[in-house]
Amino acid sequence: MPVFSKILIANRGEIALRVQRACREMGIATVAVHSTADADAMHVRLADESVCIGPPAARDSYLNMPALISAALITGAEAVHPGYGFLSENADFAEMVEAHGLAFIGPSPTHIRMMGDKITAKTTMADLGVPLVPGSDGEVPDVEAAKRVAAEIGCPVLIKAAAGGGGRGMKVARTLEEVEEAFRTARAEAGAAFGNNAVYIEKYLDRPRHVELQVLGDNHGNVVHFGERDCSLQRRHQKLLEEAGSPGITREERDRLGEIATAALTKFGYRNAGTLEFLYQDGQFAFIEMNTRLQVEHPVTEMVTGVDLVREQIRIAAGETLGYGQADISFNGHAIECRITAEDPETFAPSPGKVEVFHAPGGLGVRLDSAIYAGYRVPSHYDSLVAKLIVHGRSRAEAIARMRRALEEFALSGIRTTIPLHLRILDDPGFRSGEYTIHWLENFVARR
Amino acid sequence: MPVFSKILIANRGEIALRVQRACREMGIATVAVHSTADADAMHVRLADESVCIGPPAARDSYLNMPALISAALITGAEAVHPGYGFLSENADFAEMVEAHGLAFIGPSPTHIRMMGDKITAKTTMADLGVPLVPGSDGEVPDVEAAKRVAAEIGCPVLIKAAAGGGGRGMKVARTLEEVEEAFRTARAEAGAAFGNNAVYIEKYLDRPRHVELQVLGDNHGNVVHFGERDCSLQRRHQKLLEEAGSPGITREERDRLGEIATAALTKFGYRNAGTLEFLYQDGQFAFIEMNTRLQVEHPVTEMVTGVDLVREQIRIAAGETLGYGQADISFNGHAIECRITAEDPETFAPSPGKVEVFHAPGGLGVRLDSAIYAGYRVPSHYDSLVAKLIVHGRSRAEAIARMRRALEEFALSGIRTTIPLHLRILDDPGFRSGEYTIHWLENFVARR
Repeated sequence: MPVFSKILIANRGEIALRVQRACREMGIATVAVHSTADADAMHVRLADESVCIGPPAARDSYLNMPALISAALITGAEAVHPGYGFLSENADFAEMVEAHGLAFIGPSPTHIRMMGDKITAKTTMADLGVPLVPGSDGEVPDVEAAKRVAAEIGCPVLIKAAAGGGGRGMKVARTLEEVEEAFRTARAEAGAAFGNNAVYIEKYLDRPRHVELQVLGDNHGNVVHFGERDCSLQRRHQKLLEEAGSPGITREERDRLGEIATAALTKFGYRNAGTLEFLYQDGQFAFIEMNTRLQVEHPVTEMVTGVDLVREQIRIAAGETLGYGQADISFNGHAIECRITAEDPETFAPSPGKVEVFHAPGGLGVRLDSAIYAGYRVPSHYDSLVAKLIVHGRSRAEAIARMRRALEEFALSGIRTTIPLHLRILDDPGFRSGEYTIHWLENFVARR
Repeated sequence: MPVFSKILIANRGEIALRVQRACREMGIATVAVHSTADADAMHVRLADESVCIGPPAARDSYLNMPALISAALITGAEAVHPGYGFLSENADFAEMVEAHGLAFIGPSPTHIRMMGDKITAKTTMADLGVPLVPGSDGEVPDVEAAKRVAAEIGCPVLIKAAAGGGGRGMKVARTLEEVEEAFRTARAEAGAAFGNNAVYIEKYLDRPRHVELQVLGDNHGNVVHFGERDCSLQRRHQKLLEEAGSPGITREERDRLGEIATAALTKFGYRNAGTLEFLYQDGQFAFIEMNTRLQVEHPVTEMVTGVDLVREQIRIAAGETLGYGQADISFNGHAIECRITAEDPETFAPSPGKVEVFHAPGGLGVRLDSAIYAGYRVPSHYDSLVAKLIVHGRSRAEAIARMRRALEEFALSGIRTTIPLHLRILDDPGFRSGEYTIHWLENFVARR
């Protein structure tokens, strides 16, 4: 007997297909939802059932809570998987799902809400013993207070929207003189973007890595971690290439961070999948935020641990216990993920259109998570991610060589993609050394 | 510096591409060879260089030794990888390669020749302490001797061509009365098929499994094994689905077999990849033959050990030491390979033709080794294998569920394939129990 008989997947594209795959392997029927722009999408074609939930604009379809709930109820689904993006971190949606007697495959609405507010997230984690970047004690109400905090912790400082994400409402002040303008701009952007102009301040680390820790908790008090991912390679706060493990931290550092994080989340009573994001510099981790959902880059963790994280999410949502402890999780080899987007690899201009040829790379250690196919028209309404190419190797060098080979083998025409950019990154000595920071990619792109 | 600058791959189809992939990851340039029927083949399209070696008939192209040697010399290749089939177990070819100053990526010609003769192989292995099926002491010269041996070891017995392979020149005598006719038929078939009518006799095991052991030896006296594969699912002596590990033997049995085999091959001085094939019944292994080459089913071993066997073959041929010992090889989870052929899944009639749609399955734990693509015309001249779908799971149950899901996801039209047959096998309780023998598949197919 499967843990659920049917699950509705409230998402589209590769992640909808990813969740479907786990369901199918567990013997669970799937319901796909789609906008009118996605009627031909692969996640619709491969699902057991599908429901059209609205017109192309995401707010009218993939963000349309009543339509999603209705689709779940009409089809007799027992649970809803939100994927990532869209409503995956919307506590109201999680509450609405549960209020209709359905299981939400994710954390409790309370935890989603707490971690969704970046200030609450930090004070909560700090109280639980997780290290933070030095910064303001919560919201900074005015310019004077901002200057005071900046003087205390020393410039450069970062002024950030409490309700922020994706880099909006975020400003750097390199000197005390710059604090006033940065504060006012961040506050104005925050108000415009999120309807909430609260901002806070933290020490600006000049050459940190972005290192995050994958965790899973069940409803019975068990929390384990699955090691770290290095997501330092970002352009405009969008991750482009991720690695597990991080080439910049030691196993001892990972284990220490894992102990702190799992102890904190056990006390917190966290359930389902989550990711703690940290900046790492000079041997110190500083918590920046927690994502209360599955992440785009979760496959690299699966490749080094062998654990199907989506399967675990579903089991947990059904009330099962993890059934294993930290000692049962081992780390084998190295994994890399390249996010391939339908963009010009030089200008990053979106390149939607019709896929002419699509032939996936194959062979040992190569995984492709993608929902496009030959003849498919990539719509312009959504995220430009068209494929995640993931490789595993016994060592980082083997993984890099394998990724290079797999990217070269990937036949994908009709749209422009970031494959050429990934090939350039893989060949660069800066990347190969593993000694990169979160600023590396912006400089690399600018250097061209 | 790569271990070789350029390698010629004396094969076609998925295995030519498989070897290419390893070369590319090692920074080695590749030379593809092809018959006129294969000018558009994927192994040709993806190689660095290619040479046409003759007309479609294999004897004039892929078995054409002078053409292959010329192609290697003209292109400046330093080594030749024979793949499997064709010339991979031809000692004369290996000698010719070496006589032209090229490295042969495989064992010594002497060892190929010794193991190619099935009688010599058995007496050699028996002398080295490897267990055999009870049987004649070498060739059986006449009917009287055949009857004597059969009476000694007890019927049923198997009468087999010394130079045999693929089931030709092989007859069962279930009673002493049947020995004479079986002997004469086997001898006549052997003479006609191999130009050598020598036959030998062994005990016929009525419900054995086919379990084989993968080994690697270097030129420096190091031999290790990579565990077993279960290849019991055969139809007309052609393997259809393989597993690693075998659901029918214990870890202790594997370890014991591994110790015996590696000790024997160390004494033998074996180098490069090889497979010892055994029948297994009632806790006993009986050596049947050794394959002195890479095998079709090698990927399942790679999936559970994480080791790229082709890379190891190339390193060994370049004179490198293994660099690791038996204790460094660990076994993780379970792997299954389905051989997908261009055949009618009911009648097994060949189904060459043009591939219309080709879309590979993806996601966690799924590997595809294939050299066909949308628009490709599968030629009728060669083996009907068009794809090997390989999955890995933490357990056998997980691997079976994953294979089912991946087969269902595989979009392949224009030719008929054995995908529906594989789905039926995976759903059968007899397969799922793991308690099958080498006769299971013939009965399963007949039952339909």
